[in-house]
Amino acid sequence: MDYQQILQDAMEAARPVLGHGRVADYIPALASVDPQAFGMALATIDGEFHGVGDHETPFSIQSVSKLFTLALALAEGGDGLWKRVGREPSGNPFNSLIQLETEHGIPRNPFINAGALVVTDVLHTLTGDASGAVRDFLRAEAGNPSIATDPEVAASESETGLRNAALANFIASFGNLVNPVETVLEHYYAHCALRASCRDLALAGGFLARHGLRADGSRLLTRSDAKRVNAVMLTCGTYDAAGDFAYRVGLPGKSGVGGAILAIIPAVGALCAWSPGLDTAGNSVGATVALDYFSTVTGCSVF
Amino acid sequence: MDYQQILQDAMEAARPVLGHGRVADYIPALASVDPQAFGMALATIDGEFHGVGDHETPFSIQSVSKLFTLALALAEGGDGLWKRVGREPSGNPFNSLIQLETEHGIPRNPFINAGALVVTDVLHTLTGDASGAVRDFLRAEAGNPSIATDPEVAASESETGLRNAALANFIASFGNLVNPVETVLEHYYAHCALRASCRDLALAGGFLARHGLRADGSRLLTRSDAKRVNAVMLTCGTYDAAGDFAYRVGLPGKSGVGGAILAIIPAVGALCAWSPGLDTAGNSVGATVALDYFSTVTGCSVF
Amino acid sequence: MDYQQILQDAMEAARPVLGHGRVADYIPALASVDPQAFGMALATIDGEFHGVGDHETPFSIQSVSKLFTLALALAEGGDGLWKRVGREPSGNPFNSLIQLETEHGIPRNPFINAGALVVTDVLHTLTGDASGAVRDFLRAEAGNPSIATDPEVAASESETGLRNAALANFIASFGNLVNPVETVLEHYYAHCALRASCRDLALAGGFLARHGLRADGSRLLTRSDAKRVNAVMLTCGTYDAAGDFAYRVGLPGKSGVGGAILAIIPAVGALCAWSPGLDTAGNSVGATVALDYFSTVTGCSVF
Amino acid sequence: MDYQQILQDAMEAARPVLGHGRVADYIPALASVDPQAFGMALATIDGEFHGVGDHETPFSIQSVSKLFTLALALAEGGDGLWKRVGREPSGNPFNSLIQLETEHGIPRNPFINAGALVVTDVLHTLTGDASGAVRDFLRAEAGNPSIATDPEVAASESETGLRNAALANFIASFGNLVNPVETVLEHYYAHCALRASCRDLALAGGFLARHGLRADGSRLLTRSDAKRVNAVMLTCGTYDAAGDFAYRVGLPGKSGVGGAILAIIPAVGALCAWSPGLDTAGNSVGATVALDYFSTVTGCSVF
Repeated sequence: MDYQQILQDAMEAARPVLGHGRVADYIPALASVDPQAFGMALATIDGEFHGVGDHETPFSIQSVSKLFTLALALAEGGDGLWKRVGREPSGNPFNSLIQLETEHGIPRNPFINAGALVVTDVLHTLTGDASGAVRDFLRAEAGNPSIATDPEVAASESETGLRNAALANFIASFGNLVNPVETVLEHYYAHCALRASCRDLALAGGFLARHGLRADGSRLLTRSDAKRVNAVMLTCGTYDAAGDFAYRVGLPGKSGVGGAILAIIPAVGALCAWSPGLDTAGNSVGATVALDYFSTVTGCSVF
Repeated sequence: MDYQQILQDAMEAARPVLGHGRVADYIPALASVDPQAFGMALATIDGEFHGVGDHETPFSIQSVSKLFTLALALAEGGDGLWKRVGREPSGNPFNSLIQLETEHGIPRNPFINAGALVVTDVLHTLTGDASGAVRDFLRAEAGNPSIATDPEVAASESETGLRNAALANFIASFGNLVNPVETVLEHYYAHCALRASCRDLALAGGFLARHGLRADGSRLLTRSDAKRVNAVMLTCGTYDAAGDFAYRVGLPGKSGVGGAILAIIPAVGALCAWSPGLDTAGNSVGATVALDYFSTVTGCSVF
Repeated sequence: MDYQQILQDAMEAARPVLGHGRVADYIPALASVDPQAFGMALATIDGEFHGVGDHETPFSIQSVSKLFTLALALAEGGDGLWKRVGREPSGNPFNSLIQLETEHGIPRNPFINAGALVVTDVLHTLTGDASGAVRDFLRAEAGNPSIATDPEVAASESETGLRNAALANFIASFGNLVNPVETVLEHYYAHCALRASCRDLALAGGFLARHGLRADGSRLLTRSDAKRVNAVMLTCGTYDAAGDFAYRVGLPGKSGVGGAILAIIPAVGALCAWSPGLDTAGNSVGATVALDYFSTVTGCSVF
Repeated sequence: MDYQQILQDAMEAARPVLGHGRVADYIPALASVDPQAFGMALATIDGEFHGVGDHETPFSIQSVSKLFTLALALAEGGDGLWKRVGREPSGNPFNSLIQLETEHGIPRNPFINAGALVVTDVLHTLTGDASGAVRDFLRAEAGNPSIATDPEVAASESETGLRNAALANFIASFGNLVNPVETVLEHYYAHCALRASCRDLALAGGFLARHGLRADGSRLLTRSDAKRVNAVMLTCGTYDAAGDFAYRVGLPGKSGVGGAILAIIPAVGALCAWSPGLDTAGNSVGATVALDYFSTVTGCSVF
């Protein structure tokens, strides 16, 4: 398939909606991004790479980091993780505290904020440096040593992150955090504030298309675990719109409020689209349109 | 692949858990089924058929009927359906009224009871006989004219179905039922009370593996809509355990409290397993184990 | 105290808000009432009677009937009632189904719709004619044999009462209705559709000011039970605004969407104000202002 | 009335349940209290004082402090308070975060933890020392300069108070705290950790029986505001059992997990009972029985 042309066409398909939606503006560093920006990149398991638009522009990866946190925590610590976090869709906004109360501090899945805090706690216990582990993994897979936490974003998140502080204290009140609340929040903010490009993320997501193998051929996850992470992405990866994303795009995907969506085409490659305008569920409007176009034209849906 | 042998092995894998879980006992006709029963059948898109155990024993298909109701309503009436029912996982039990209240009578998805009532209403308006349409479709696809509603089960459901009557009245109070509450309930109970076997359901589900083509080669759904129904199955088809089912089995599946789970292997075939004991989420314990085994051994996961 | 003058002044205090709020319009018979109407009546335990404005105009008493249903059920059947209905404020709208689900079919209190359905069921079992019992009690206390159910209102309520049908079926699904759903709904609608005036209700409420003694001096409730019904009125009698009503008026009160509020001044008398415009919680705007004025001027608060 | 004898009898009535229920044990300093302890005191508006049992033993007043915080915030700052906190019963446990989410950070009432945090914030802005203001008020009213915060309890509360930290951060995330989260929590813990006896609290609560006048005859609250605080106590003062407390005792009351309940008999006096064992709603078992006895025998119910 002429992926370069298809990416080009996907960008054209998204163009009419660029600037639509709402750029995340709860911290200045996110609000200042160009709402018209758009990038898209595909890295295949055969080593092909294609990119269009601003595919080399770094942005704040935000919740896309939760995917890597989960994968690393599973790789390092195994299935015990699932005793502390579920894998069911929540049916509620990503930062809701409601289910946490009725479900006794066990977050519904690793991709809502509550769940990602628990996974960060797990990874921190395993590695001693949760955010560093995520950063190093991205650097290695993307071959880009410049990937780093934006300190301004991390600081702003921390200052304005009252809801996340509420979540972390609440989870801790149920005994489901091992490290101090402040430590978990610090590492959570640090991995969310990592800056990377579509190119970087498409390369870094490749292990999920390769059924667990890293870029260098070493194994991060078992074949089975890699498939299972894809399953969690598909059912829970795009906030309370996971059903709609599965319906439209048909691929496992993980989104972030920075505007990125990283999608996996099992046995084919990893695909990242980025555009800052968000829909009401918190997913990028432009990235969704581009991914929808791509999966429709290529037939690359898992279904 | 030697599917016959794999089915045989899947049945052996499930054997230790047969009798586990709880047989649905809210009506006598369901409670009297043999808890040790087990059947499994695979119908491939190439016309192969394999079955093991009680694969020709008819049982009450219950919520598996919701899959066919949805497909027929989409085939007959198109996308307008999605204005009246969502496609997001609910994060709540299948018969919960809670979200319906906060979401103003729009059920979260077509596979919780509330959503299936709305889809039944849609199909009834389109066809004048919602349950008859489902029955006739099953008969045609399975080539089995004996498929029919069990009148005793339908009557029992109706007598004991206070929760469903509550749901239907509640939805109607928001203006989201067109036909009389009694009519919708009658047809809902009638299609849930259809009796069919693993063989029948595997054959009837084939259109979703064939991307929309019926057994006779005619088109029921567009390629795109067939994929999308699979997506809704994967995210919402097994009650509030859809995430876990996706994680373990990795296939779109629709379960019923009669003990059946119908799973789709896109471009390969449709697979139905049946065993009456249910887990706390309402999914068959034995069928889940057998499907998990099958997908692990064959690698037939969508991820 | 010159109660006649105070009632006159209370009416003047309410005049500026008459026509404010929203007249209940879910059935034609309620919607056609004059939004400017206002009446107020006080019947003291000494046999004094005072009335102003439209105090002899009959209106639909609606949920005020729930007070009499409760008192009669307690009088006939005693404390066993509290096993089937709670006495805590709900913190939710009067017709919510949410708590009913999490609290397994035990309504929070006798004055939300769910609770009143259960009390109606209890009273029906005790008397064989729940709505007739309420009607006969009102007639006797008010000395007004013309008090009767408005058949048009009862029929309209029944036709449009999908939410109440949902509630009744839902409660029944938990096993908390003894009589058939249809019977309970019929009697519920019949006592809500009773027509009476401010004068009638002030006289009928007197037993709660007389600590349980009826107009003829016979005892309906023990002294203790009469106080307890007042307590339930104060904490739960004005929907999800009971706290605000207690704060402003400081008297036990029971409101109805017909626009009436019946308030009890223990050891002094019963006071009924009526004006059709409702606030967002479902309580009469004009009646609340008039009662607030009355209690402020007379000092007749229980606190 | 021979109040001394009635108090003696009330203590006897409570004796069989002393030791019942569960002593608050979330911090060591509370857990170590004698579960058999019981005290009760009445201070009338005429200056009479009666006490029985351990009525001079100081204990941790816990949530009873919320009553004084509210009164002082109203006295200092007036009605503006009600824009930041409601006055409706919550229908949920005292430390629930659920309603806070759906009601956008406005706590339901000043006596649930969330509401008390907001009132503490208000009082701190008005006085510069919220907990000091409460302490000084208690000292002055009780004529007891030894009333002080137990530093060990305050420190323990702070260390274990993850749920309260969650609440405070959550409220702050909605913009409903003015002072820093840490400051509000510190003062909240400090006034909850005040130690006082039944005698002290009965004397300190007198202003609510005197319709706003302090012990020295000066006015703290207007007559109207004093009544209104009583109204909020009655509808919201005993957690999610306020309806039951009103039903049984019929007096405005404020309880704390230290085992105290302070009840107001308007125009008569203030009554405090204390016993450490708590029921499932968090109210003292022994104190409730004693207050129930007292109000039944004396007829001192507001209804």
